[in-house]
Amino acid sequence: MGHAVLSRSAAGGVYGAARGMAGTAGGGPKASGSGGDGPSGRGSRPRLLSPFARRLLYWTAGTAGLATLGYYTAKDEIEAFDSTEPPQEVGLVPGVLYKGLPVVATPQRADGVRRERLVILGSGWGAVSILKTIDASAYDVTVVSPDNYFIFTPLLPSVTVGTVEFRSVMEAIRRVVKRIQGAYIEAAAVDVDFEKKCVLVEKDGEGRVWVPYDRLVVGVGAQGITHGARGLEFCHRLKTINDARSMRQHIMANFERAALPTTPAEEKQRLLTFVVCGGGPTGCEFAAELYDFLAEDLRHYFPRSIQQMVRVVIVQSQDHILNMMDSVISEFAEREFGRRNIAVVTNSRVQEITEKGLVYTTKMADGSVERHEIAQGFVLWSTGVSLTPFTALLCERLAGSQRNQRAITVDDRLRVKGVPDGSVYALGDCATVEFPHLLDCINELFDSAHSKDAAEMTRAEFRLFISDAAKRYPSAASHLQSLEHNFSHFDTDGNGRVSRSEFRGMLEYVDSKLTALPALAQVANQEGVYLGHALSRMARARNEGKDEVVEPFTYHHRGTLAYLGRAAAADFGEGKAYRGSNLAAKYLWRSVYWSQQVSLRTRILLMMDWSKELLFGRDLSKF
Amino acid sequence: MGHAVLSRSAAGGVYGAARGMAGTAGGGPKASGSGGDGPSGRGSRPRLLSPFARRLLYWTAGTAGLATLGYYTAKDEIEAFDSTEPPQEVGLVPGVLYKGLPVVATPQRADGVRRERLVILGSGWGAVSILKTIDASAYDVTVVSPDNYFIFTPLLPSVTVGTVEFRSVMEAIRRVVKRIQGAYIEAAAVDVDFEKKCVLVEKDGEGRVWVPYDRLVVGVGAQGITHGARGLEFCHRLKTINDARSMRQHIMANFERAALPTTPAEEKQRLLTFVVCGGGPTGCEFAAELYDFLAEDLRHYFPRSIQQMVRVVIVQSQDHILNMMDSVISEFAEREFGRRNIAVVTNSRVQEITEKGLVYTTKMADGSVERHEIAQGFVLWSTGVSLTPFTALLCERLAGSQRNQRAITVDDRLRVKGVPDGSVYALGDCATVEFPHLLDCINELFDSAHSKDAAEMTRAEFRLFISDAAKRYPSAASHLQSLEHNFSHFDTDGNGRVSRSEFRGMLEYVDSKLTALPALAQVANQEGVYLGHALSRMARARNEGKDEVVEPFTYHHRGTLAYLGRAAAADFGEGKAYRGSNLAAKYLWRSVYWSQQVSLRTRILLMMDWSKELLFGRDLSKF
Repeated sequence: MGHAVLSRSAAGGVYGAARGMAGTAGGGPKASGSGGDGPSGRGSRPRLLSPFARRLLYWTAGTAGLATLGYYTAKDEIEAFDSTEPPQEVGLVPGVLYKGLPVVATPQRADGVRRERLVILGSGWGAVSILKTIDASAYDVTVVSPDNYFIFTPLLPSVTVGTVEFRSVMEAIRRVVKRIQGAYIEAAAVDVDFEKKCVLVEKDGEGRVWVPYDRLVVGVGAQGITHGARGLEFCHRLKTINDARSMRQHIMANFERAALPTTPAEEKQRLLTFVVCGGGPTGCEFAAELYDFLAEDLRHYFPRSIQQMVRVVIVQSQDHILNMMDSVISEFAEREFGRRNIAVVTNSRVQEITEKGLVYTTKMADGSVERHEIAQGFVLWSTGVSLTPFTALLCERLAGSQRNQRAITVDDRLRVKGVPDGSVYALGDCATVEFPHLLDCINELFDSAHSKDAAEMTRAEFRLFISDAAKRYPSAASHLQSLEHNFSHFDTDGNGRVSRSEFRGMLEYVDSKLTALPALAQVANQEGVYLGHALSRMARARNEGKDEVVEPFTYHHRGTLAYLGRAAAADFGEGKAYRGSNLAAKYLWRSVYWSQQVSLRTRILLMMDWSKELLFGRDLSKF
Repeated sequence: MGHAVLSRSAAGGVYGAARGMAGTAGGGPKASGSGGDGPSGRGSRPRLLSPFARRLLYWTAGTAGLATLGYYTAKDEIEAFDSTEPPQEVGLVPGVLYKGLPVVATPQRADGVRRERLVILGSGWGAVSILKTIDASAYDVTVVSPDNYFIFTPLLPSVTVGTVEFRSVMEAIRRVVKRIQGAYIEAAAVDVDFEKKCVLVEKDGEGRVWVPYDRLVVGVGAQGITHGARGLEFCHRLKTINDARSMRQHIMANFERAALPTTPAEEKQRLLTFVVCGGGPTGCEFAAELYDFLAEDLRHYFPRSIQQMVRVVIVQSQDHILNMMDSVISEFAEREFGRRNIAVVTNSRVQEITEKGLVYTTKMADGSVERHEIAQGFVLWSTGVSLTPFTALLCERLAGSQRNQRAITVDDRLRVKGVPDGSVYALGDCATVEFPHLLDCINELFDSAHSKDAAEMTRAEFRLFISDAAKRYPSAASHLQSLEHNFSHFDTDGNGRVSRSEFRGMLEYVDSKLTALPALAQVANQEGVYLGHALSRMARARNEGKDEVVEPFTYHHRGTLAYLGRAAAADFGEGKAYRGSNLAAKYLWRSVYWSQQVSLRTRILLMMDWSKELLFGRDLSKF
């Protein structure tokens, strides 16, 4: 694959030309090296095949190889595909009304076994991860979601410019539900009755009906924070597939309009100014994909004068973009964007967006605030998360237990705090995990760890405490272990033993490290996998009449990945970071996402899309 | 390929189940035979590969083979792909206004050669066929179209159910224009000034500007006929890619809504009643694709009770569907649809469409008219063609020469009648070719054909006349030749010679056979290819200072093809018809469309789509 890519880069001279197009004079020797390093660089050697034929050959070979690989790693899905029994109909309990509204009868499965009813709200990462991992015979599952598909959100920025096809990032939820013979209702949850254990759902404001549950999972996601900015109706968001499509159409329409002979130069400049509010992964990846689209495709088909006018601006409130990642990565990203003429404006807040303009304020080093106004043709709003109307209501119903303004608080087994019988779970962007604070039980911990005779803990007792506590609080394990390495730092009196006050200092340090998990796809995914397994184990234990104790959830950070336009950066946590500014980085990034796909179908579709792009470039149609 | 398909059919038992689903008891032995005739029928033989693995293997082999084939038949496009020079900017003539509006300056090519300016309005079949065939150095071409893409219209019905991806039937017009270094303006023509030779164009009602031409081609298509029906705002049409998408969303939304527990049975029945107004190829193919979608995909994922409610109704004003095709075909199609429980209502006209209902009247055998009313969840309006506002205005400007209410009349060289210097051409759905009537010059023909001495033509003279006239009037050639075969029929006095009155009878017969060409993609395509070559020849002749006489246009009917849902019918004219009610017919149908693709890109994309469908079925997402 790498070879095929290089040959394209060389044939088109994309890299060099792209920089030229963007109008900057700068750029390191690395970039020009990459531009001249293809087979055409050693052009004197005779060629058997044209560059295109070679691309085709690589593509066919790659397709065959990956398809085979994909097949052997997705037996499950293939079995589901070959099963042909249609699902049971979802009906109503005859003659029963609750609070004046009908009640859904969960369809009985063909085997007639009595199971607990599991209702899952949402069809995003969390919900789908549960559906993919849960034991098929454990529950009668009903999924309620207003959208009948799952979206692979990390690839949405790629969809906006047409690198990836719309359907390749989508998976029909009915297909996922089929494996576990579950039911699906296309509706949105609007209320929940924790006493009677049922959820109120509706479809576009009509057809209200109660869905009873034995266990409920809330995975409905979140909505963006406005940060008090006005005029957000003029912005795009990037949450759904329709968002991606309207962005795509807007981008193409702006280019075509800018190319019209009657458009004045000033208006052209406005149309070709793309502003991204928020310097997180989504914002940065959109900027990068837009750059690729320009550099690789539009430059062949639009006049140079149009290309030179393109401006991409990222407005970030913090002092760095990608600030949740390692600072090495942030700086690398800013440098790479600088080389691509993507302007990064830091320490700035967007105040107002109008139909054709945008106002932001920048906090200067001396503490003063500067006001800026720019004409724009396109704004993407991609900032943090907050509660949706439904999750806000849910928290209100549990007043006293739920105090977070941005998410539903759950314990370390993902149970919603305040629900007495622990039958309600929440995960993904709509939930925040509150890990237990060690400080809350300092006395118990200290007393059980050290021998009753002494006032202090010996070094051996301390080691034993750490290994015990790491098992009991797995989310704190790595921080507990770091205590051992930094023992001398915490041993303030230097006597090699741990006093109660020294112990308090240690626990304070560990607690401070247990921050909220970020709103990332991989968090929702890991939570879903955990809950799928946990629910399966609970069902098994219940059938055997036993009481299953489920281990708490722990999050393993697998790294954060950002695509920067022919460069990529990854932060694997604990100071390990990867940066690459060549095509290998791009393909590394793609391979990671490819491996995370939820189905063989989307895996093959993505492969086809990337092949299409390699062969023909991106589509230019206003679709 | 055939094998892989059979194995799927057998695994799923699609055919039999589909009929069961549709709720009919009927169906021939052929259908049940096809259902049991797969590898599973001889299930005792051990298998090396699972059905899915085999499908995958066939697909990979097919992909590789077809990609190679495609490559060697599309050198042109590959060259265009590898060329990287961006187009020139389209600007305005500085300081010049005409009727108060600015004038576009056609961009000068790099070689500085002075060429005639060719302006093409539209981006459909006609326009693209010209762009694909015209000599790249013959003209400075400017294309004006409100949509920046071409659509392969015959496959639009497949797009509505997701058999084929949206982008696979689209080709960006900028990509097509690139080969001939032309310019593209995203705008719509609103007026034309034949005196000053310029077209007035605008973008969404703004930015009006004149585009001057030396030669103009009008290929803007047509709009549907309303036939006086009311409530057409509740109908779908199938002209653009957005039409296809909204149909797709509507279909999926209806299924999901019908599956809701709160939807009453009557409303379910309404939601699942799909009405097609018009029994032409588009209407029939949509009905067939909808049936396939049900039979092959939805049946796995929606409850049986929902499936059994699906009704598809075709309302046709004539006494047969597909009435422009051979009657053998029409009857076959009606029989096939009957087996699939697709209701065909003939001799009926739709009078009114409301949000949830439809009224049509049927002319009974005894001449009386019956009124019917049905509840519907979806209506497709696909009837004949009529003038758009722009073409109507164009005809008005040529009042006297243009009398047709449905299309622009052109002569047999595709020149718009009434334009004095013959510099304006029209083609495709917006044009109708008026072939010269032989009767108009009967005296000249008769006098030049027979010897001055006799009153009648000898048999030998008659044969000579036919071979001469066939060259002069190529569109009438086949009808002229049939005179020779049916000589005795026209030789009323049986003397073996042709009198003037017998000659008149013959020419009347020939003229009557010269009917208007149908509004088909292949007509527009052939007209475009003809005009592309003709314009190239004219440019060459002009450069050499000669006067090129261009042969008149002749239409060669290559057959009409209709897909009927796991069956296909083709009418090759002259009484030759093909009917097939198995999967081979489906693949024949696909192979014909595949071979007609305008680019290697769409060819490979289509192949990928069909493979996807074979591997994973159609997508179920509401997208």
